Amino acid sequence: MLGAVTTSRARGSDAGDGPTHKRLAPDARRAQLVRLGLQQIRSRPFDQVLIDDVTEAAGISKGLLFHYFPSKRDFLAAVIRAAAAELLAATQVDPEQPQADRLRAGLRAYIAYIEQQPSSYIAIARGAGSDEQLLEIFEDTRSTIVERITAQLDADPSPVLRLATRGWVAMVEEATFKWLEDRPCGRDELIEMLEMAALLVLPRARTLGAAPDADASAG
Amino acid sequence: MLGAVTTSRARGSDAGDGPTHKRLAPDARRAQLVRLGLQQIRSRPFDQVLIDDVTEAAGISKGLLFHYFPSKRDFLAAVIRAAAAELLAATQVDPEQPQADRLRAGLRAYIAYIEQQPSSYIAIARGAGSDEQLLEIFEDTRSTIVERITAQLDADPSPVLRLATRGWVAMVEEATFKWLEDRPCGRDELIEMLEMAALLVLPRARTLGAAPDADASAG
Repeated sequence: MLGAVTTSRARGSDAGDGPTHKRLAPDARRAQLVRLGLQQIRSRPFDQVLIDDVTEAAGISKGLLFHYFPSKRDFLAAVIRAAAAELLAATQVDPEQPQADRLRAGLRAYIAYIEQQPSSYIAIARGAGSDEQLLEIFEDTRSTIVERITAQLDADPSPVLRLATRGWVAMVEEATFKWLEDRPCGRDELIEMLEMAALLVLPRARTLGAAPDADASAG
Repeated sequence: MLGAVTTSRARGSDAGDGPTHKRLAPDARRAQLVRLGLQQIRSRPFDQVLIDDVTEAAGISKGLLFHYFPSKRDFLAAVIRAAAAELLAATQVDPEQPQADRLRAGLRAYIAYIEQQPSSYIAIARGAGSDEQLLEIFEDTRSTIVERITAQLDADPSPVLRLATRGWVAMVEEATFKWLEDRPCGRDELIEMLEMAALLVLPRARTLGAAPDADASAG
């Protein structure tokens, strides 16, 4: 869409987010603008991101931002996609850990992400409305998390196991949001409850979902 | 706000939603407009409600609508509040039924509501964004459902039981949405999975949440 522009990285730029009138290569400029957008959605609802603040911090004109992102919606989508990538990276646990530890480690990381940047999380998980781009980011992110979990449980997860896992992720999200409001119990109690729910429900969902006449469960 | 106007119901009106230039009493007019809004959000995202269609169907001017509802946001909030009341009424189960039957009946009704009017449900449960009025409607609705369920389990529900129940309601919602996309399993399997989750998780959450040195559990 941007034509045959150079794809080389900006050389010698220390990726300064402060005002700078440096010329940046397109990739570096896009990355810089997305990073500035990420900073904004950490502290305010994503639909209140101020394009003026982003362009001022980058030391560029609004026109240049709209050269890289055709509309504010497109810019926000790029920012939210970056936030989703952060969430997925933050909740990726060491595959060498025992399975029980992985569940708890993933839960802790997921809750910590929501806690530390609730507005970024809301942008990913609840901000889509009827916006196609944002719905796609939400769906991709949630599916990735669900696939990670179900892959631990079954090489060929049934639809019911997938539904239960997806439901459990929503349970984690909702309970964490509610907990953040006034922390009515300790963090460890919250984690224990959510872990207990996974350990009780998901293995049962796996057997519920198995077709009674299936002769193989491995994919 | 509307001053000392009559509160009598519109006499003789058969609550026609079609074009009518009848004078209606303020309460009846508000109810009519909300009903027309409800019809719209059953079939389209609530943020795409067309005020023009509502006023045309009511046979009134836009100015008159904005006399009753100061802004489109206020009108939408009234419509979504009415949808939430419908949801609560639809999922209210017979208190004379055995407890196990009530859970299943409530689940069936909840899933049926989402299935029959997904866009109304989305408006209640996911449309709030950062809108204070809509957040309040969502919170009131969800709290009412959570209180109904926890009251069945404990006269004095602990914070952990409340969090678990709230999480379970989110699980129902998310699994149902995903199920509606392509119905990867039968309705009964979906209901069985969600019922199983409630029966396994909520009683355990009740004991998790109990303070170890509490000497009374009834409120």
